[in-house]
Amino acid sequence: MSLPRINLNPPFNITRCSHVCLEVRDIAASRLFYEQVIGLVVTAEEDGVLYLRGIEEACHHSLVLREVKGETKCSRIGMRVLTEEDLDKAYAYFSDKGCTAEWANVAYQGRTLDVTDVNGIPLQFCARMPIEPRQITSFHNHRGGAALRIDHYQILVPDLPKALNSYMELGFWLTEYVGIDDESVRAVFLQRKGNPHDIVLFNGDGPRIHHFAYMTTETQNLLRACDVAGELGFGRQVERGPGRHGPGHALFVYFRDPDGHRVELFNTHYQVMDLENEPIRWDPHDPAVAFPWGLPARKRWFEEATEFRDVEVRETPIRPTPMTLERYLQD
Amino acid sequence: MSLPRINLNPPFNITRCSHVCLEVRDIAASRLFYEQVIGLVVTAEEDGVLYLRGIEEACHHSLVLREVKGETKCSRIGMRVLTEEDLDKAYAYFSDKGCTAEWANVAYQGRTLDVTDVNGIPLQFCARMPIEPRQITSFHNHRGGAALRIDHYQILVPDLPKALNSYMELGFWLTEYVGIDDESVRAVFLQRKGNPHDIVLFNGDGPRIHHFAYMTTETQNLLRACDVAGELGFGRQVERGPGRHGPGHALFVYFRDPDGHRVELFNTHYQVMDLENEPIRWDPHDPAVAFPWGLPARKRWFEEATEFRDVEVRETPIRPTPMTLERYLQD
Amino acid sequence: MSLPRINLNPPFNITRCSHVCLEVRDIAASRLFYEQVIGLVVTAEEDGVLYLRGIEEACHHSLVLREVKGETKCSRIGMRVLTEEDLDKAYAYFSDKGCTAEWANVAYQGRTLDVTDVNGIPLQFCARMPIEPRQITSFHNHRGGAALRIDHYQILVPDLPKALNSYMELGFWLTEYVGIDDESVRAVFLQRKGNPHDIVLFNGDGPRIHHFAYMTTETQNLLRACDVAGELGFGRQVERGPGRHGPGHALFVYFRDPDGHRVELFNTHYQVMDLENEPIRWDPHDPAVAFPWGLPARKRWFEEATEFRDVEVRETPIRPTPMTLERYLQD
Amino acid sequence: MSLPRINLNPPFNITRCSHVCLEVRDIAASRLFYEQVIGLVVTAEEDGVLYLRGIEEACHHSLVLREVKGETKCSRIGMRVLTEEDLDKAYAYFSDKGCTAEWANVAYQGRTLDVTDVNGIPLQFCARMPIEPRQITSFHNHRGGAALRIDHYQILVPDLPKALNSYMELGFWLTEYVGIDDESVRAVFLQRKGNPHDIVLFNGDGPRIHHFAYMTTETQNLLRACDVAGELGFGRQVERGPGRHGPGHALFVYFRDPDGHRVELFNTHYQVMDLENEPIRWDPHDPAVAFPWGLPARKRWFEEATEFRDVEVRETPIRPTPMTLERYLQD
Repeated sequence: MSLPRINLNPPFNITRCSHVCLEVRDIAASRLFYEQVIGLVVTAEEDGVLYLRGIEEACHHSLVLREVKGETKCSRIGMRVLTEEDLDKAYAYFSDKGCTAEWANVAYQGRTLDVTDVNGIPLQFCARMPIEPRQITSFHNHRGGAALRIDHYQILVPDLPKALNSYMELGFWLTEYVGIDDESVRAVFLQRKGNPHDIVLFNGDGPRIHHFAYMTTETQNLLRACDVAGELGFGRQVERGPGRHGPGHALFVYFRDPDGHRVELFNTHYQVMDLENEPIRWDPHDPAVAFPWGLPARKRWFEEATEFRDVEVRETPIRPTPMTLERYLQD
Repeated sequence: MSLPRINLNPPFNITRCSHVCLEVRDIAASRLFYEQVIGLVVTAEEDGVLYLRGIEEACHHSLVLREVKGETKCSRIGMRVLTEEDLDKAYAYFSDKGCTAEWANVAYQGRTLDVTDVNGIPLQFCARMPIEPRQITSFHNHRGGAALRIDHYQILVPDLPKALNSYMELGFWLTEYVGIDDESVRAVFLQRKGNPHDIVLFNGDGPRIHHFAYMTTETQNLLRACDVAGELGFGRQVERGPGRHGPGHALFVYFRDPDGHRVELFNTHYQVMDLENEPIRWDPHDPAVAFPWGLPARKRWFEEATEFRDVEVRETPIRPTPMTLERYLQD
Repeated sequence: MSLPRINLNPPFNITRCSHVCLEVRDIAASRLFYEQVIGLVVTAEEDGVLYLRGIEEACHHSLVLREVKGETKCSRIGMRVLTEEDLDKAYAYFSDKGCTAEWANVAYQGRTLDVTDVNGIPLQFCARMPIEPRQITSFHNHRGGAALRIDHYQILVPDLPKALNSYMELGFWLTEYVGIDDESVRAVFLQRKGNPHDIVLFNGDGPRIHHFAYMTTETQNLLRACDVAGELGFGRQVERGPGRHGPGHALFVYFRDPDGHRVELFNTHYQVMDLENEPIRWDPHDPAVAFPWGLPARKRWFEEATEFRDVEVRETPIRPTPMTLERYLQD
Repeated sequence: MSLPRINLNPPFNITRCSHVCLEVRDIAASRLFYEQVIGLVVTAEEDGVLYLRGIEEACHHSLVLREVKGETKCSRIGMRVLTEEDLDKAYAYFSDKGCTAEWANVAYQGRTLDVTDVNGIPLQFCARMPIEPRQITSFHNHRGGAALRIDHYQILVPDLPKALNSYMELGFWLTEYVGIDDESVRAVFLQRKGNPHDIVLFNGDGPRIHHFAYMTTETQNLLRACDVAGELGFGRQVERGPGRHGPGHALFVYFRDPDGHRVELFNTHYQVMDLENEPIRWDPHDPAVAFPWGLPARKRWFEEATEFRDVEVRETPIRPTPMTLERYLQD
C-alpha cells in the first residue's frame, strides 16, 4: 500500500480522543486503582457506574467503569466532534457506509451517536458533556501519577491497511508508523488534536483495545504512580517500564488494572500541526524503536488485549515476531 | 462590552503562534543566553541573523535574532496558517480591512505575508518552513530549561476591546480573561491550537510585546534555567519567579534577555477544544490571580515591554493600578 | 578573631541536630500547615502537645508544638548525643562552665538534659527516643513538601565570636562562613553529622531562632509545598524563594508558620567528613552569596525571628546593612 | 549466628566509603560512559589512569580507571579514615590479624595503606586527598545522571558471617539485612557515615565486587542517565531498573560500564545515627523485598560480578535460588 494523504475536507469534524467505557468486576477495587495509582478524579458514581476524569479535564468523564458479572470487556471508545451539526454529518456518513449508527441515550453526555465502524470498532461520538471544575490547582488532592487527561487509545486490527484508510478518510493525520517500508506497515499513529496520537492502530487479532493512555508531565509522577502501585498491592500490575518509547519519544509505564485492562501513563510529547511534517517511519528491526534502553516488553504485552463487548475477534493473516523479553533473555 | 463568541467560520485558518523576530545588539551574548539558559537549539546563523527553535520543534525556527546597532525592537510576530490557500485568503482579508498586507521574501520560510493589523501589530504569516530533525531525544545536548516549543506571546494594546474583537473575528477562542466584569476586561487569553493561549492581550501603552513564552515540562527544568542563568552571569535577569500563575495555572519564570526582551519559561497547562468550555473570568482584585503564593511582580514587569520596529506606541486611556512588589512591600 | 580549629576530642559526643520545641496559639492551624504544606507526619497529639517528624525519621519527633495563650516563642532546640554516658559528660561539662544544666522529664524521650549555654541558648540533649516506623515508602500518604528530616536550625547571636568558640569546643566542624575576612565574620555554618550544618549562627540581636530547616530532595517537592500553601490559604506565608543559596548550594523556600515561626524547606547538599576540607569563606558584598539569581530577601527576613521563652534578647553591637529587597528595588 | 552489636570503640576510625579502582580496556570509552551517562567529573588523566569524582565531591577522586590489556578487574576498594594516626592504628590492627598490610605510594592521595582483609578483600585506606572545587553549582556542565558522590559498594563473599563479624569489629553499624531469621542471613548493609550503607555484603562466590553506587537526588536525573545511555549507544547496558529497592528504599538503576563493571545510580535514603535504631530484617521470600513493583532482576544480575585483581574466588557453600526474571516469566 502507499501511505494515504491527509484529508483536509473530512466528512465531519472529530476534535480528539474523548473517553473509554470499560466493564469491571469490582468497582471499589477499580476506583482504588484509578484514583490512587493513576491519579484520576471521580466525578460521579451511580447505578454501578463510575465516572472519572484527569486532574485538568473540564469534561465530565474520560473513563467510564461499569460493574458487571463475568467477563469484563470494553464497551466503546469515545471521540469528540466539534458541533452538534458534526454529529448529524457523522450519522449520515456512517449510515451511507452501511455501518451501524444509532442515537444513544447516555448519562452525562450531550446527544450521543453509537457507531460500529468498518473495522468493527464500537465508537461513540458526542459534541458536549457537562462541565466540571478543573482540578489542576487542587494540589493537595493530587494522587499517584496525577494524570492530566486522556490522550489516546491503541487498537489491534487484523486488516491494518483498511483501518488506516478508514481513519484517514475521517481527516486523521498520520504522524508516525512502524514498517520496513510503506508496503509492510505494522502500526500507525493517527491524530486530530495536534500531538502524535489520538488513535494508534497495530496489526493484530482484533479489533481489541490494547491500552488507553493518560498524560502526566513530570518524571517524578510516573515513578510515584509505580511506588503507590507497589504500596497498595498493585506492584505486580506494573507490566512494563518505566521506559522510553522510540515512536512518540515519551517516557512511559504500563499498568494492568484490577480487571487486566491495560492503561499507560506517559509524559509529554511534541506538537504536530504543520502540513510539511511528513510521517516518520520506524524500522521494526531496530531495537531502539521498541526499547532505546533497558529491556523489551514481555510476550503478554504484545499478545494480550481487551476485547470489545459483542464484537467478534478476527485473526490477522500477518504474524510478526516481535522481540519479546522472553526471547531477548535467551540470546 | 460583551464578550464576543467564537467564530467557527473564520476568513482563513490560523493554526498556531509560530515565531518571534527580535533585534539584538550582540548576537553572541544572545546566543549564549538562549542556548544555555532557555535551552533553545540553533538551526542556522548567517548574515548576522540567528535562527533558533525549541528542542521538539521540527520547524526551522521559532525565534529569529537580527543584530542591529542602537535600539533593539521586535520586528514582527509570526503565525502559522494551514495551507497556501489560507495565505491568499489572509491577503484578501487584511487588504479589504485597509491594513498593510505585503508579500515578503523571508529566508527559511515558505511564501510569507507581512501584515500590520488594525491594532498596529506587525504580524507575519506563512504556511511552511523547512523541516529540521526534532531534538527531543538528543538528551545529552539538552541545556538549561530545555525549552520544548514556542507557546504564545503577550501584547500590550491601548484599546483592548477593539483588539479582542479583531482576533475573535479571525477565529481565536477566548479561554480566560481578567476583569471585574465583562465590561472592564483588562486581559484576554486567545488561542487557536487547543491550549490556553497563542496570543495574550493586556491593556497598556502599545502595541508593544510584553513577552514571548516557551514551554518546558519538568519543574526541575525551570529551576535549572535559573541556576544556569545565575552561573553564567544572567542572575539579575531572572526578573520574576519561579512562581505559579493564577490564569493558565502554570509554573513560570520570567527572564530578561541581554537586550531586555522578556521571555517566559513555563510548564504545562490544559487542553481546551470543547465548545462548552466557557471563558474563565479572573478578578483583578483577587491577589490569588497574580500571585497565589509568594510575592507580586515588580513594577517594571508591569510597565516595561519591547516596542515594535517602526510602530508608534499609543497611550492607553485606562490606567489600572496593579499590586506591584514595590507597593506590596510598603503595606 | 582567627577561625578556631576542629576539636577532635570534644567533651561529649553530639551526633546531630535533633528537634525544635515551639509554642503555638492554635494547634489545629499549625497541624494543617506542617502536615499539608511541609509534609510532616504526626506521631502523637496529647495534652495540647503535637509531636511531628519527617517522612524518613524513625525517631519519635523532630518538631514539638505546644499550644499556649498569648505570645508564642521557642522553648528549646534539641541535640542528640550518642550514648547515655555522653549525657552525664554533658551535665558535668555545662555545670563546670557555670551554665544551668538540669535533668528534665520529657515525654517520648529518654533521659533528657536541659541546658542554657553560655550564649543563653536553651538547649535540650537526649540519647534516645521511642522508635517509629519510617514513612518513606508510605507513598500515598506523602503530602506537600514531603519533608524527609530535620537538618539544622539558624540562631541569631549578639556575640558571634563567643558563640562560635563555644560550639567549636563541643566538636562542631566549621564548614562555611560569611565574612570580609576572618576578623569580621557575620555567619558560621557548624556541623556534626557530616553535611554542611546542624547549627548556623548569624550575628544579630539574640539569641533568637531565625529558622529551622527540613530537607526534601526533589525540586518538584519544593514547588508543591508552595502550591499547597497557596491553595490552603498560606500563600502570603511563602516569605522567600524558591531560590538558590550561595553557601550550602541548596535550593530553598522559606515559610512563616501560622504563628510566624520561620521554617525552611530545602534540598540536598554535600557531604563533609574529611579533615582536609577547609572552611569556605563567602564575601557578604558579593550578591551571588545572598542571591545567585532573582531577588534578595525582604527586610523582615533579615530582622524578624522567634524569641526563646524566658531568654532575654541582647542587642548586637554590629549592625551590617544587608542588601534587602526593599533597598534593591530602589536602585 | 546471632547478629553482632555495634562496636563503639573500634580499633581505628573509618569515616566512609571513599573510592573504587577499576581496570578498563579502553579509557576513552569508559570516560564517555562515566562522564555523559553517570555524570562524573574528570579531575585528571595521566599515564593511562583516569581520575573521576561526583559533582559535589571535593576529594580528588572517587573512581580510578586504569587502562590494561586483557581481562579487567577491580584492583582495590578504598575507605577513608579520619586522621593520619588512624592509618597507623589500622596498620597495626591488620598486621596483628596476620593480614597483608603495606604502605603504598599512590598518586593524588595522602599516605596510603593497602590491606587484604581476612575475607580476601583488597582494601585501601587513606586520610587525605588533594582538594578540588565542588562542581555542584557548575550547573551548565552537569551531565546525565549528575551523580553527586560515591555512596557504597556491594561485595559478594562466600562466608558472610565471618565477613560481617570482621566489619562489625571495625565499628560498622548494621542497618538492614536480608534473612529468614538471624541464623540464615544472606545480605548485610553496613555503614559508618550515617546513612544505610558504606559496604554491603551478599552471600556469593567471592570475594567479588557486585557493584559500586553513586547517589543522585532527583528522579529526573535517574531517567536522564538512562536516556543518555540509550542515545550514546549504551542502551543495552541499562541492566536493571529504574526500580524501587525494598531495603534502603531508594529508586535505582543499574548500568554495566563498557567493561561490564556494574555501577548503580540511586537516589535518596535515610539517616541512621541513633543507637536505638535496630537493624531492619527483610524476608528474602517476600517479593516486595526484591521488587516492590515491576519485574525482578535478571539472572546475570545475581550471578555476574567483577573479580578482584590477584584474588582467588572461592565458592560459597550456600546457594539460594533468588527469584530471577527468567524464572518469574515462566510462572
